[in-house]
Amino acid sequence: MTTRRRAAPDATRRSEESRRAILAAAFDLVGQVGYARLSIEGIAARAGVGKQTIYRWWPSKGAVLFDAFLMLSEGETGRPALPDTGDLEADLKAVLRSTVAELNDPRYDEPMRALNTEILHDPALAAAYAERLDGPLKEAKKERLRSAQRAGELRADLDLDVAVEMVWGPLLNRWLQRSGPLTPHYADSIVETALNGLRRPTRRRRDQH
Amino acid sequence: MTTRRRAAPDATRRSEESRRAILAAAFDLVGQVGYARLSIEGIAARAGVGKQTIYRWWPSKGAVLFDAFLMLSEGETGRPALPDTGDLEADLKAVLRSTVAELNDPRYDEPMRALNTEILHDPALAAAYAERLDGPLKEAKKERLRSAQRAGELRADLDLDVAVEMVWGPLLNRWLQRSGPLTPHYADSIVETALNGLRRPTRRRRDQH
Repeated sequence: MTTRRRAAPDATRRSEESRRAILAAAFDLVGQVGYARLSIEGIAARAGVGKQTIYRWWPSKGAVLFDAFLMLSEGETGRPALPDTGDLEADLKAVLRSTVAELNDPRYDEPMRALNTEILHDPALAAAYAERLDGPLKEAKKERLRSAQRAGELRADLDLDVAVEMVWGPLLNRWLQRSGPLTPHYADSIVETALNGLRRPTRRRRDQH
Repeated sequence: MTTRRRAAPDATRRSEESRRAILAAAFDLVGQVGYARLSIEGIAARAGVGKQTIYRWWPSKGAVLFDAFLMLSEGETGRPALPDTGDLEADLKAVLRSTVAELNDPRYDEPMRALNTEILHDPALAAAYAERLDGPLKEAKKERLRSAQRAGELRADLDLDVAVEMVWGPLLNRWLQRSGPLTPHYADSIVETALNGLRRPTRRRRDQH
């Protein structure tokens, strides 16, 4: 998202340090004051840089916040991957329980809520989000489901996009709409319901005849 | 949400007409200009009333829009109910296909997007939404699932809140995040996947041994 001029190594290093300080400041600040009251001025003051330094690299506070999330995700080494112990149900429960814990942490809740709602009204940001942040994560989720298909745990004819939405959609909605508690029990319940389906098993129905 | 003084019948009727004109204007206008550019001034001009008339009844444009949705839902007679032909899969597909059609209609997309995103940042509006708009609808969804449980179509031990999220959550997310096409085929696919689950049926797995 940024265009940099060629510079001496020292200047490059100082730029990179400023950039990281700004992104860290944006992330911390939005968690404290909320997105509505987040301002470029506030980020600049907290990062110890001038406002113009920020405007040189980013057009808006939404763009700064987006890059802050990108920095966080790049901090993790390599491509994202879900745990694969061979037991899909256990792996998905572990992942959803850790997501639930993150969403209950005020340090993450507000920045992620801000990013998610910006996306809803800004198709350009939504496209950048889909490509650079959500895309690699979604691919990791689908890869874990593919592995379970190969192991014979999942149906071979699943639409994997729908399958991913089935596991992660309910949690995202409940969080965004604050429509219910986010608990470890809830995380487990989603995984079990998504895997087993709502329908009463055919076998038990046959037993009745 | 409004407090009315006692008034002669004619004045009451005129008030009610103004109120309905304002709500209809808000709904139409947000569909045309988007929520960010929706203003009390604009609503007043379109409804042919003074700005003060609106401020007398509503504190904000979000509150006007909320009541506009309430008026729409009250326009339907009695409590909301889902179709119940005895075939849950067919009924859910019909409901989700009609939701998909509504979300693809620009007249509804923008107002509903606006309401949904206001809710994400306004816990008071979220509570009003949960109680007066989403609540009765959610109860209708659960009632349809309960009926299917009584008919032996669904598992008896389902968490009905999770079950509702499993059917409607993926669609809401895909719409809000613009993460994929909203088609009749997609509506059907959600219903089938939610009902049958992701897991490969046990019977087929047993056949392999």
